[in-house]
Amino acid sequence: MVGGSLEGFIGAVHRMSAALDGRIELVCGAFSSNPSRSSATGEALGLTKTRVYDSYEEMILSEKVLPEAERMEFVTIVTPNHLHFYPAKLALESGFHVLCEKPITFSLAEAEALAEIAKKSGLLFGLMHNYTGYPMVKEARNLVNRGKIGKIRKVIAEYPQGWLSGALEADGQKQASWRTDPKQAGLSCCVGDIGTHAENISEYITGLSIKELSADVSTFVEGRLLDDDANILVRFNNGAKGVIIASQIANGDENELRIRLYGEKGSIEWLQSEPNSLILKHNDEPRQVLKAGNNHTYLSEHAREHCRLPAGHPEGYLESMANLYRNFADAVYNFKLGQHLNPLYDFPTIEDGVRGMKFIEMVIASGKENGKWLKL
Amino acid sequence: MVGGSLEGFIGAVHRMSAALDGRIELVCGAFSSNPSRSSATGEALGLTKTRVYDSYEEMILSEKVLPEAERMEFVTIVTPNHLHFYPAKLALESGFHVLCEKPITFSLAEAEALAEIAKKSGLLFGLMHNYTGYPMVKEARNLVNRGKIGKIRKVIAEYPQGWLSGALEADGQKQASWRTDPKQAGLSCCVGDIGTHAENISEYITGLSIKELSADVSTFVEGRLLDDDANILVRFNNGAKGVIIASQIANGDENELRIRLYGEKGSIEWLQSEPNSLILKHNDEPRQVLKAGNNHTYLSEHAREHCRLPAGHPEGYLESMANLYRNFADAVYNFKLGQHLNPLYDFPTIEDGVRGMKFIEMVIASGKENGKWLKL
Amino acid sequence: MVGGSLEGFIGAVHRMSAALDGRIELVCGAFSSNPSRSSATGEALGLTKTRVYDSYEEMILSEKVLPEAERMEFVTIVTPNHLHFYPAKLALESGFHVLCEKPITFSLAEAEALAEIAKKSGLLFGLMHNYTGYPMVKEARNLVNRGKIGKIRKVIAEYPQGWLSGALEADGQKQASWRTDPKQAGLSCCVGDIGTHAENISEYITGLSIKELSADVSTFVEGRLLDDDANILVRFNNGAKGVIIASQIANGDENELRIRLYGEKGSIEWLQSEPNSLILKHNDEPRQVLKAGNNHTYLSEHAREHCRLPAGHPEGYLESMANLYRNFADAVYNFKLGQHLNPLYDFPTIEDGVRGMKFIEMVIASGKENGKWLKL
Amino acid sequence: MVGGSLEGFIGAVHRMSAALDGRIELVCGAFSSNPSRSSATGEALGLTKTRVYDSYEEMILSEKVLPEAERMEFVTIVTPNHLHFYPAKLALESGFHVLCEKPITFSLAEAEALAEIAKKSGLLFGLMHNYTGYPMVKEARNLVNRGKIGKIRKVIAEYPQGWLSGALEADGQKQASWRTDPKQAGLSCCVGDIGTHAENISEYITGLSIKELSADVSTFVEGRLLDDDANILVRFNNGAKGVIIASQIANGDENELRIRLYGEKGSIEWLQSEPNSLILKHNDEPRQVLKAGNNHTYLSEHAREHCRLPAGHPEGYLESMANLYRNFADAVYNFKLGQHLNPLYDFPTIEDGVRGMKFIEMVIASGKENGKWLKL
Repeated sequence: MVGGSLEGFIGAVHRMSAALDGRIELVCGAFSSNPSRSSATGEALGLTKTRVYDSYEEMILSEKVLPEAERMEFVTIVTPNHLHFYPAKLALESGFHVLCEKPITFSLAEAEALAEIAKKSGLLFGLMHNYTGYPMVKEARNLVNRGKIGKIRKVIAEYPQGWLSGALEADGQKQASWRTDPKQAGLSCCVGDIGTHAENISEYITGLSIKELSADVSTFVEGRLLDDDANILVRFNNGAKGVIIASQIANGDENELRIRLYGEKGSIEWLQSEPNSLILKHNDEPRQVLKAGNNHTYLSEHAREHCRLPAGHPEGYLESMANLYRNFADAVYNFKLGQHLNPLYDFPTIEDGVRGMKFIEMVIASGKENGKWLKL
Repeated sequence: MVGGSLEGFIGAVHRMSAALDGRIELVCGAFSSNPSRSSATGEALGLTKTRVYDSYEEMILSEKVLPEAERMEFVTIVTPNHLHFYPAKLALESGFHVLCEKPITFSLAEAEALAEIAKKSGLLFGLMHNYTGYPMVKEARNLVNRGKIGKIRKVIAEYPQGWLSGALEADGQKQASWRTDPKQAGLSCCVGDIGTHAENISEYITGLSIKELSADVSTFVEGRLLDDDANILVRFNNGAKGVIIASQIANGDENELRIRLYGEKGSIEWLQSEPNSLILKHNDEPRQVLKAGNNHTYLSEHAREHCRLPAGHPEGYLESMANLYRNFADAVYNFKLGQHLNPLYDFPTIEDGVRGMKFIEMVIASGKENGKWLKL
Repeated sequence: MVGGSLEGFIGAVHRMSAALDGRIELVCGAFSSNPSRSSATGEALGLTKTRVYDSYEEMILSEKVLPEAERMEFVTIVTPNHLHFYPAKLALESGFHVLCEKPITFSLAEAEALAEIAKKSGLLFGLMHNYTGYPMVKEARNLVNRGKIGKIRKVIAEYPQGWLSGALEADGQKQASWRTDPKQAGLSCCVGDIGTHAENISEYITGLSIKELSADVSTFVEGRLLDDDANILVRFNNGAKGVIIASQIANGDENELRIRLYGEKGSIEWLQSEPNSLILKHNDEPRQVLKAGNNHTYLSEHAREHCRLPAGHPEGYLESMANLYRNFADAVYNFKLGQHLNPLYDFPTIEDGVRGMKFIEMVIASGKENGKWLKL
Repeated sequence: MVGGSLEGFIGAVHRMSAALDGRIELVCGAFSSNPSRSSATGEALGLTKTRVYDSYEEMILSEKVLPEAERMEFVTIVTPNHLHFYPAKLALESGFHVLCEKPITFSLAEAEALAEIAKKSGLLFGLMHNYTGYPMVKEARNLVNRGKIGKIRKVIAEYPQGWLSGALEADGQKQASWRTDPKQAGLSCCVGDIGTHAENISEYITGLSIKELSADVSTFVEGRLLDDDANILVRFNNGAKGVIIASQIANGDENELRIRLYGEKGSIEWLQSEPNSLILKHNDEPRQVLKAGNNHTYLSEHAREHCRLPAGHPEGYLESMANLYRNFADAVYNFKLGQHLNPLYDFPTIEDGVRGMKFIEMVIASGKENGKWLKL
């Protein structure tokens, strides 16, 4: 693991998710750019001292020379955005698969370069767009694929949250500080952090691509250097229209990621705060509420394979992320055996990452040009 | 009543709403341009034969010459859009107050002309934007006014419905036929019919004005002559940003009018399909769910005066419209006595109507110019 | 109308409900045992002075001798429980149909006597169990009848409300005072006022009869003379088991009447606070949410006939009561013409009233005998 | 681990829960009474071969003689009910702490004997009543303790589920077979499996004890040997009244565990299917919806310590169970150090287990005596 010291929040989240299924063991880490923090974290986690490193370079280069049976099998990167590219590059070039937090890099240029590197390496690259790991998101994708709502006409994807309503970064709050700092976060705060989730889930479920967009991007909190709100009109490659709303000043909202898909024959709705339900609607028919559960025969195999429990046992965010870890680990395992990857165990890849970076850059650019429609 | 024959749907809705409080009596009508339909409707309603008229002209001119104590006190107009202006004009010029369905007229030009006429007449003009008649919408307005959520930053107003997902007008369905016919509906179907509700409720609750907008307007159903979907970015006069979504191809949705208001200190959410609840949120505080009820002392007097029942007795759409009738009737009553109108008994007026027509024209124009930002 | 002066709450509710469809006109009333209150109410309602009476006796006897075309067509009784029997008796014996608030009388003995009188009279007797007037309750009954959930095994009916959590009657609050006074309310407060609704709706939807019951009846508020809470086990004539919960000390609850029916093949759930939805569940199938709307072809004709509006326009409590008034008025109309009553326009009758009184007496008796099972 | 082979469901659930926080490592197991199944499970889990045992006796006795640093630190028992007592007894007598599935034993006599043994051993005994591990259940307990709803008057606890609506055991379904078999499950199926959850959570949140109960116990599925439904009236030691409803024939329901607590000043409601919300109500105040999140300062420290994530990241069933594992592991750790247990990290103990067995026996006995009130 690169990044994820005890001080932060995201390292623990990744560790819990990776541990859940008992298929992944954390064997080494460079948890912080501050060596004493890294070693304190490693110690708290009970790692062998020699495998708690002072830097990602040291980690990757040291692990590389260990005997194959001992060395780490893949690298997971959970640092702020500006510290994704170099560790990922070095890991790939040193022969390690990479699982990386989103957005994939600091800039589109970096993302494209990394995609080249990954391609050349022939190794696996996973991207932590974990919302697509929820079973009912998988189900939504399957319902669309099977034509249950007909040709998609309209997509509304929102991600309102309220935690940046005030100037937390002025108080030095760690999460807020790097996310609102152009040197660490890149071009965007709100669009990069959560807008990309809305974009990714829209394309994942529909199988469509956003073709062009027009954005109204705002910074409401005085003194903030990056955006904290965006309203975006989008058009898809099949002619569908859409709206993407991302906000970090939606005071009182938590992570109300919600997606609605309207097709010629029906519609689908999913809400992250009630992740185990999926609503399926058709004009003049009762609404259907599908519920997660590995015993629900009415769900697709794809969805069932991403439930750990029978219906009636709510699963949540950690489980969605654990699905991504499980799928990536399964891919690593099959890769090692020279086998095909299991198509049921899918995960976002570097292409999603490049697409996300393009989305960010186009949204910010459109915002600067007063909502000019730009191609994606 | 002008329009509202038995064949239609809206006449009965108005009659039920007007009757609910026992303060308004239907005394005459020109229910259809087809005299035999008009008289059949009048008979079914038990009206005196002599006061069931063949045309609105006949009605207005005949009633005008009745003794004051006998003649109708105001005219309510429930015809399709293209038949609003002339009856309203004649009524005002003949000394009758007017309560009119929305959108106010066929075109902005008509609306502005009518506003002139109304102003000159000195009479009352009410507009049937009934959603603002719901008690919890009144409460939302009061909460905003009292600063409970601070300065407004963002407004999301949506009105998705699905009934026009298919080409109902091709089958001659009456409601669909006139609404999708440019000669009867005007410039717009979707924006005019429901987009204006979203616009009106946004401005009503916030007390702000939409300053400019950028729209993506679509017609998804083949052969349809007017729009059936619109995604609109808006900016308010205080710097707030917003999104207005209106759709008639939201297959499976009924009238899911929903408004969310985000301020510096908190947020408010209201959903027409659960009209007796209002959600009030603040970062790091429990969410509050306010419930309608004339006995709830925590509600504003304004909201309580628009509840007919104590909490626990759900009220609905007819009651919201009845509130508008009650308020208008109260204004007529006070007008007659030469008294000030009761500010608690407010209703939308011709200014709202003109504003709505401007909104429609600008949305359609922006849509035609690929989302160019236009001033409202 | 007998009772229902301006001071009370229920008179206005009845008047609004009766007025809604324009088929019923209030022509006379004895609104209070206090003649000046009665005449003030009549004046406020715009009634002809001569038809505002000082007492129900005067009203019934005076109306009786009016020419048929002028006199009232039925009597509606909205007084406290102890003032139901005599007006109802006199009305029936004077040839008037009666629509009466529930519970039907002060005691079971009165109810049985009244049933005899009604039977002898050959006239119509309606009971204001208005919850069965909701369209989705009608739909529930139809779904059960059509076997959609199979043979009923279990029924849970609850009516928790919180308004009597404190000793309102000690402060002279009018509604609380008579309901907690054994001389006005009879044997029971909570069971009589709301427990009977739970009992009535259970039997209405299932078509079953409660065969026996065991009750735990409580008075939580000190000094209160009647019950304010009851937990009741019930057994139905087909072997189904059930629970009826009624509470007036459910602090914070409004009128959360909720019924759940479990059959061999599926289950149904309805909640009065969201009356336009009905939930239909089957093991290993998506849940279905049926929505009210007179245009929903998937609903039974019975349900559709009790909706005034298309889907998406919420209807509420007044509409449910108006359905009962509409149905009763329709029956009166058909009765006059010597026609069969319309089976789609059903309403609770005196048999339901007698059954409700038996239920009250048995619950109170079982409570006194520490939950002894008693036959109903 | 005793029990929990790959064939079953519960073993995997425990393993995921125990793994989540990275504080517990599975080191050995006797996963099945069938040695080849046990060893297959151990192999799949990557355990050292020598520590996968053929029987619990072998496991406990072998581990006991390992050096302290190597041997297991506690035993977790996840077998069917009839196989709890002996492994637990042997583990305690061999010096191992025990964490056991509920209900604690096959019979009350066993439970009482085990309590004696545990007491004598001085070791820790945890019981897997995992619903009390949910953060919002902790919050409910804290709100009650702090007097937020006043003295408790009424408790309604329900656990309806539908999976046993049909005779699954006749088809050999494993979960159904042992639960409906008196030789494996004991006196009760429904009351033992889920009724005890409702009992336990009621006493946990309120801090009260059920003093007496009257039950109506049913078996609806033909040929079934144990109960599949129970309606239970309860009375608490402070005078509060309650209802406990447990059902396995609630066709279409999943695990709708729901508890409502009514006090003199307010009420609380919690629903397992939306576990991250807690509803707090008071007459004539807006309802409050408290949401889980370790960053919510309005929650008690107790609740926050049982959240792994900030608000907006739903947690579920596995996390509730993981809380119990974490708390038990923390207690084991402190025990080893001779330190006081952390009162924030509480867990159900053998006293809860004995109480649960008493509850089961009294419910079944009352059911057999037609609802006679029996002391608990």
